Amino acid sequence: MNSTFSWNEGSLDAAIDQGAKGLSEGGVPVGSALEIAGVLVGLGHNRRVQDGDPIAHGEMSCIRNAGRQRSYRFATLYTTLAPCAMCAGTIVQFGIPRVVVGEDETFPGEIQFMRDRGVLVTVVDDPRCKNLMRAFQREYPDVWAEDIGES
Amino acid sequence: MNSTFSWNEGSLDAAIDQGAKGLSEGGVPVGSALEIAGVLVGLGHNRRVQDGDPIAHGEMSCIRNAGRQRSYRFATLYTTLAPCAMCAGTIVQFGIPRVVVGEDETFPGEIQFMRDRGVLVTVVDDPRCKNLMRAFQREYPDVWAEDIGES
Repeated sequence: MNSTFSWNEGSLDAAIDQGAKGLSEGGVPVGSALEIAGVLVGLGHNRRVQDGDPIAHGEMSCIRNAGRQRSYRFATLYTTLAPCAMCAGTIVQFGIPRVVVGEDETFPGEIQFMRDRGVLVTVVDDPRCKNLMRAFQREYPDVWAEDIGES
Repeated sequence: MNSTFSWNEGSLDAAIDQGAKGLSEGGVPVGSALEIAGVLVGLGHNRRVQDGDPIAHGEMSCIRNAGRQRSYRFATLYTTLAPCAMCAGTIVQFGIPRVVVGEDETFPGEIQFMRDRGVLVTVVDDPRCKNLMRAFQREYPDVWAEDIGES
């Protein structure tokens, strides 16, 4: 069940723009945005293909781009796709309390794990996010499998 | 209880050298080494302070430095300190089946979570690893708290 908290459509749009940018670069089309106390502090998208960096999922790039933070207590992370165990573990470890997920249909991710650890998660079920992923999964199934650690 | 699998003292030593390098740079002294089928393919240490990169824990830097891998099925990750939820989640997501942990006394990490997800984990309880961390935690308590997401 979705958690109730207020979030900004504009920040989800910014995450989707990041995902589309990734797709246009030939990369995995997952984008992310980080707000702290309602202010956008970081954007990022998956860079596995572009940088040869296996840990650069959309959420990770975004958190990296936002730089060092003393606390994530007032943070909301937006991501076009359900976070995998790496990204969910990062959210839990850094104490990011709220996550807005574009969709969890093309990849289920670790939503229950985050909720079990006290994170509030809302799944928007946005068709723009699903369209990005479906196009990529169809065209580059091997890169997608590699990105989520499936041999 | 520790899992039984063979591992290389030399790779743990290499991880400890990485941790010591981090300390000498004024950074968080956690080092890591990645083997695939017994061959060392990557080394890394925490780079939060050096690069201003919050996701660059020792294990993450090491996996990044090893570059894209088609599979981690035959991998063993060595780390001087018990992996946090970010690093444990990465190990689980990428299917790294074996982890050698230098120590879990100065930070307990997410060893049970990894075991629950089928990862074989051995904790060595190496005094060199504990000495690295204790020196750092004493000298830079704020950076250490930030590194593990404690406000």
